[in-house]
Amino acid sequence: MPLITLLTDFGLKDGNVAAMKGVIHNIAPETHLIDISHDIRPQNIPEAALILSRSAPFFPTGTIHLVVVDPGVGTDRRPIGVQLGGQYFIGPDNGVISMLLKLVEASNLKVSFVHLNKPGFWLPQVSDVFHGRDIFAPCAAHLAIGITLDELGERITNIIRLDFPEPILKKYGYTGEVIHIDHFGNISSNIRFEHLQGKKVLNVHLCGCEINRIVKTFGEGNQGELVALFGSTGNLIVSVVNGSAAERLQANVGDMFEVFIERG
Amino acid sequence: MPLITLLTDFGLKDGNVAAMKGVIHNIAPETHLIDISHDIRPQNIPEAALILSRSAPFFPTGTIHLVVVDPGVGTDRRPIGVQLGGQYFIGPDNGVISMLLKLVEASNLKVSFVHLNKPGFWLPQVSDVFHGRDIFAPCAAHLAIGITLDELGERITNIIRLDFPEPILKKYGYTGEVIHIDHFGNISSNIRFEHLQGKKVLNVHLCGCEINRIVKTFGEGNQGELVALFGSTGNLIVSVVNGSAAERLQANVGDMFEVFIERG
Amino acid sequence: MPLITLLTDFGLKDGNVAAMKGVIHNIAPETHLIDISHDIRPQNIPEAALILSRSAPFFPTGTIHLVVVDPGVGTDRRPIGVQLGGQYFIGPDNGVISMLLKLVEASNLKVSFVHLNKPGFWLPQVSDVFHGRDIFAPCAAHLAIGITLDELGERITNIIRLDFPEPILKKYGYTGEVIHIDHFGNISSNIRFEHLQGKKVLNVHLCGCEINRIVKTFGEGNQGELVALFGSTGNLIVSVVNGSAAERLQANVGDMFEVFIERG
Repeated sequence: MPLITLLTDFGLKDGNVAAMKGVIHNIAPETHLIDISHDIRPQNIPEAALILSRSAPFFPTGTIHLVVVDPGVGTDRRPIGVQLGGQYFIGPDNGVISMLLKLVEASNLKVSFVHLNKPGFWLPQVSDVFHGRDIFAPCAAHLAIGITLDELGERITNIIRLDFPEPILKKYGYTGEVIHIDHFGNISSNIRFEHLQGKKVLNVHLCGCEINRIVKTFGEGNQGELVALFGSTGNLIVSVVNGSAAERLQANVGDMFEVFIERG
Repeated sequence: MPLITLLTDFGLKDGNVAAMKGVIHNIAPETHLIDISHDIRPQNIPEAALILSRSAPFFPTGTIHLVVVDPGVGTDRRPIGVQLGGQYFIGPDNGVISMLLKLVEASNLKVSFVHLNKPGFWLPQVSDVFHGRDIFAPCAAHLAIGITLDELGERITNIIRLDFPEPILKKYGYTGEVIHIDHFGNISSNIRFEHLQGKKVLNVHLCGCEINRIVKTFGEGNQGELVALFGSTGNLIVSVVNGSAAERLQANVGDMFEVFIERG
Repeated sequence: MPLITLLTDFGLKDGNVAAMKGVIHNIAPETHLIDISHDIRPQNIPEAALILSRSAPFFPTGTIHLVVVDPGVGTDRRPIGVQLGGQYFIGPDNGVISMLLKLVEASNLKVSFVHLNKPGFWLPQVSDVFHGRDIFAPCAAHLAIGITLDELGERITNIIRLDFPEPILKKYGYTGEVIHIDHFGNISSNIRFEHLQGKKVLNVHLCGCEINRIVKTFGEGNQGELVALFGSTGNLIVSVVNGSAAERLQANVGDMFEVFIERG
């Protein structure tokens, strides 16, 4: 039986994620369900796009990612299904899949899009404000039991794609920005391992602070020390050893993040 | 294999929900487990009753709802099992099932009650303060593997039922109250679609504020605008588009919520 | 199929727990996954040790506990696997298993340790900062599908063990300390049922307050009253009936917790 993951901004207190899972179990009782996150900040599509792109690659072929961060629910934004190589996405057409799609296309995997416009695969009654429960969960469940994407909707040629800022190459290194702050307060930038391959990092400038200690892992630094290192997703991050860098530096998503490298 | 849902006020940090799941797996290893919520405010039976009544209808026949919000644990309040049409409830007799029971009885489905008084289906050692783990989880698990409700306890004729306030019909419309504030800060009232069918809503009065913008879904309003609409459960709600109405209006559960309708 | 539990300090917002679950599903698609907690305070190994020792006994034989609270990730701290009677532990060698190990050894169950040093059972690429995903999750998944602990690594004779303070017997009773504060604000001490068996508790001294009301369960006390009782794990706790004792007393882990008993 395939696996459906769930990624939303619903939080867990109100039972709305559970209602989606109940709907799925009604249609596809043997499906495995795994929560990616329900703590995406409300309506924050870029954050969901990032978390999806970081998690999906670790899931097996056949996995269906049900992603509902949906400020446009009930308007004319389309419900869509996407084939991403061997995995699938079900959710609103709002760009939340952009980062993952880029990874999949860069690997030359098969990609196709459908407009989920076959109400026969939805719940009989569709609320104007909760398509996660009434359209997306039942579509994901039908996909899980073997209905094809082409049965769930009509092929479309493209979907909404969001642009995510790329770091800019400078004489001294790269100017990037903060793209995520994690549970521990680690500050992640959009400057990646690929940008810095074969180069020697001198320091990082972030929030008026110069971080000179470049390490491989947290335990190399001293307790409470500010360090720069590559995170588990290949992004350059700034951390405080056994502390919160975001709190120390008062950093926010969107802040400038500069890395200085040794001139060759 | 049937499905057991879990709904508690335990939070997730202490491993208490996990202990219940371990107990279930010991008895019924193939059962599916789905969390409804563990973020019910401590000892808040009415909140759990509402969340249960909103989630349960989306679960399949045979589902067992294990609901443990239990300020009376270890006193003489009874542990009970309830048949609700094709679904089941296991938990303390404290009224937490009242709203769901009303829905089930309104649909003329079969309802029966048992007092869970057969210690042979409990853990061998029963703590005075955690019946969720020691009585309710093992009873739910035995139900899942085919033990009948009548084997788990003796039939009783009735259980505790809580009254939930109904909106009052006025000359100008309805006076109701705030019954829930969700993760997004949407403010839900006890005034429902059925009350307002065929009537034209003029505005909503809430927390000293008049909300004149009546919409079908969030995206119809402007960013930051206060709107009134029907939520996904059929209740009249007040929202801020991409914001928190509860924060804006400083609303609380129990606050008066008035709707004005066009005189016919 | 066996059961893998997950216990971390990762929180749930970033999708890192989900990445571990995806890795497990790739290797062992039919494994059951149960979260113990992901809200361990960052890097707090003693807290994770306590929660593990309180939850594990309720899980079936064959359960694999994947515990990742890992401030030493990427340093020379060893990744280990441990047989604990019929259950297993996979995680870093940092003492997080000490309390559970003590329980298992006290029951004379079989215990053995391996150093997880066979990269063939890891992900092909191992990050320096996320061994939970790249080493521990794949090792746990291989164990779940029947690879033995001895195939996953070389036998070692011992692992790191942390000491946890024991209460001290005094003329008047016991001097212990606060070891946990739960979601409800109940304050748990290291003074246990075994220490007080056959003795009459007179009162508890905690945070400058004398608690004279000794009860069996919360509902025996009055709303808002401070009471002392045995918690569901056999530890002496202080609670406020339908309130938070931790908030009332401003208690913290490590605070002195004294119990006075009747002189015989």
